[in-house]
Amino acid sequence: MSVRAGIVVTGTEVLTGRVADANGPWVADRLLELGVELAHITICGDRAADIEAQLRFLAAEGVDLIVTTGGLGPTADDMTVEIVARFCGRELTLDIELEAKIAAILKKLMARFSGVDFDAVRAANRKQAMVPVGADILDPVGTAPGVVVPGAPTVLVLPGPPRELQAMWPAAIANDAVQRAIVGRTIYRQATVRMFGLAESGLAETLREAESISGFTDLEITTCLRRGEVEMVTRYEPHSVAAYEKLMDLVRARHGDMVFSEDGSLIDDLVARLLSGRRIATAESCTAGLLVARLTDQPGASAYVAGAVVAYANEAKADVLGVDSALIDAHGAVSQEVAEAMAAGALRRFGADTAVAITGIAGPGGGTEAKPVGTVWFCVALADGTAVSRAVRLPGERADIRERSTTVAMHLLRRILLGLRD
Amino acid sequence: MSVRAGIVVTGTEVLTGRVADANGPWVADRLLELGVELAHITICGDRAADIEAQLRFLAAEGVDLIVTTGGLGPTADDMTVEIVARFCGRELTLDIELEAKIAAILKKLMARFSGVDFDAVRAANRKQAMVPVGADILDPVGTAPGVVVPGAPTVLVLPGPPRELQAMWPAAIANDAVQRAIVGRTIYRQATVRMFGLAESGLAETLREAESISGFTDLEITTCLRRGEVEMVTRYEPHSVAAYEKLMDLVRARHGDMVFSEDGSLIDDLVARLLSGRRIATAESCTAGLLVARLTDQPGASAYVAGAVVAYANEAKADVLGVDSALIDAHGAVSQEVAEAMAAGALRRFGADTAVAITGIAGPGGGTEAKPVGTVWFCVALADGTAVSRAVRLPGERADIRERSTTVAMHLLRRILLGLRD
Repeated sequence: MSVRAGIVVTGTEVLTGRVADANGPWVADRLLELGVELAHITICGDRAADIEAQLRFLAAEGVDLIVTTGGLGPTADDMTVEIVARFCGRELTLDIELEAKIAAILKKLMARFSGVDFDAVRAANRKQAMVPVGADILDPVGTAPGVVVPGAPTVLVLPGPPRELQAMWPAAIANDAVQRAIVGRTIYRQATVRMFGLAESGLAETLREAESISGFTDLEITTCLRRGEVEMVTRYEPHSVAAYEKLMDLVRARHGDMVFSEDGSLIDDLVARLLSGRRIATAESCTAGLLVARLTDQPGASAYVAGAVVAYANEAKADVLGVDSALIDAHGAVSQEVAEAMAAGALRRFGADTAVAITGIAGPGGGTEAKPVGTVWFCVALADGTAVSRAVRLPGERADIRERSTTVAMHLLRRILLGLRD
Repeated sequence: MSVRAGIVVTGTEVLTGRVADANGPWVADRLLELGVELAHITICGDRAADIEAQLRFLAAEGVDLIVTTGGLGPTADDMTVEIVARFCGRELTLDIELEAKIAAILKKLMARFSGVDFDAVRAANRKQAMVPVGADILDPVGTAPGVVVPGAPTVLVLPGPPRELQAMWPAAIANDAVQRAIVGRTIYRQATVRMFGLAESGLAETLREAESISGFTDLEITTCLRRGEVEMVTRYEPHSVAAYEKLMDLVRARHGDMVFSEDGSLIDDLVARLLSGRRIATAESCTAGLLVARLTDQPGASAYVAGAVVAYANEAKADVLGVDSALIDAHGAVSQEVAEAMAAGALRRFGADTAVAITGIAGPGGGTEAKPVGTVWFCVALADGTAVSRAVRLPGERADIRERSTTVAMHLLRRILLGLRD
């Protein structure tokens, strides 16, 4: 037995992409945590016919719970409660107690603005106190109350502002009608494995091989190529743990050296941990600061990031990093020799014990036959004299090459700090 | 007459919110530009029954065009083409020519990985060469081809990686069957105006004033706060051009100094043009390379970007940029004095004629009562001795503050290079 849900996101600004929808993914996450299977997210504009069509669609698909977000405001384009009432075959009725509650909230809110006609505002907001007969009311966080309409499916109506929606969630889930709707939910486990240096099709081959594992079909596996890494997420019920462990044995046997995370950690987290107690500097050419920006995305990075030199021009490589111009003349700026000299320069310049240098051709111009666009040299150098260099040829366009370069650098850095050799 | 479309976004990673969907909003934007009305975006996981249900729903809603994204990869959870074929009542057939094309792409790609069994990979990818009978093929950008299945509705099947989808879009829209599906679209003009330094509510007031303009109600105006800039997008049919021009007269009269773009140009484009013939360096603390990375996003930036020093640690400010430690002791690292010294150091260090320095508190730690998190000092210095400093207090969290700081710096730079004074 399992429980399925659907999410209806309303709002023209979200449909047209002017505002990114934060509610769909957030509610999806909460439902998954609860063990409710999410079947569909649908997004539509503030049009009655489209909202109603989505409700009918989800009901026809047999979901047990529909969560709607948005359309609870006071203006004419806010119509979710009215449409849900019609969809559920219930009349709207004015809830006097709720109206008083909203009026009290508004009075406080309006006190901050001068020259507002309070009665006019309250009349506009009376609309928000109209609820379907027999529905449960969730207290407003802003001015809009949430509504639960019991039934099959049960409909949970939540406000659009993410802050209000998220604050209302605990009360929504505690509601009896919602609890009854999701009573048959399954508790899932979810495991994430991340790999680097592996083509997605290589993993596909391993997964085909895994089909012979007993219970394999009970594992819900999704794979995804992201920022140059392959991510494999598996959802399974507790009784399938043995199948999952056999799968992981196979994945480790085939791709062990490429698996860098089995507990959900990102490469950024792993590198941050490895850098604790160290002092790192970067020397960047084609990435032009993206690596140091990525390292300092982490709160607290100032404990181990000293700084960086972006040496975009060749003179800057020589003047600021102390790279011998003769090296650049002899080997070109994109070369092992220059990457090594840049890393050494960063160590010296910042008194660092760890340095990463990146020099490459991000394009669109600047490529040659020997060094086409996408050619990038990396060097990781440590104060003990360790220096490991590597060249890659990255696909894609300028932005891809620059971004992917930071990922390659993060992984190289991880391996060197772990004492692995490439 | 109007043309309606629906978008089906597939992918368990998107449904569950592990990956933010970039394709729905992007395709929505493109369809709106074309004058196609978007009715629904639906998102589902990699489950055949759910994908098919969404296709049926959109067809029942009478859309003329369905665009699907994702599910074209080589693994078993990629099944969009197969399901679309079934939905359209067409057999799948192996396209020999397409198979050869994909094999050639893979051969090149695989050359970068060692120890991969090429034949096995090719077999996995044969799946990608299976297309519905009578469908048109859109050449792969990665390894996955797009597919157009003519009919009512016409179904346009596009790959999930945004880079591939976006690169395939022009060919998709040029396709005859797609053109036939959207032939009744309304041709709109769309104009974008960008402002900086203006609250969205200030613009809202101007728009209320604009209601007296004759024909104003025929303008479809949306405003949006983005990256600290206010963007106003107006869609209108050609006969409303006079109303739009009157609106712009009013906007210029009210907010002239804040309007920086009326032709769609981004601040990045404007700054790139202004930097032509110059030589710029940045000195960054809290932004840690984000500004120089943003400047070098532009192809050809090597003509005017010399480099940058990220001086994250205070010693780096002193050692690498030559900031007098006494200044830091006296005024703190986040101060006008230090911002000015950093800019001067960048000019000197790189032999630049233009420098931007940023020093601030991105949080979460490090804030004080006098200088709370979000306090950022900027200085733009030119070789002629001009130096303009400014402090702002930015809202939001670490990532917001860092990103918003680069926007403030870009605008300050534009104004100084134009000879405007703040």
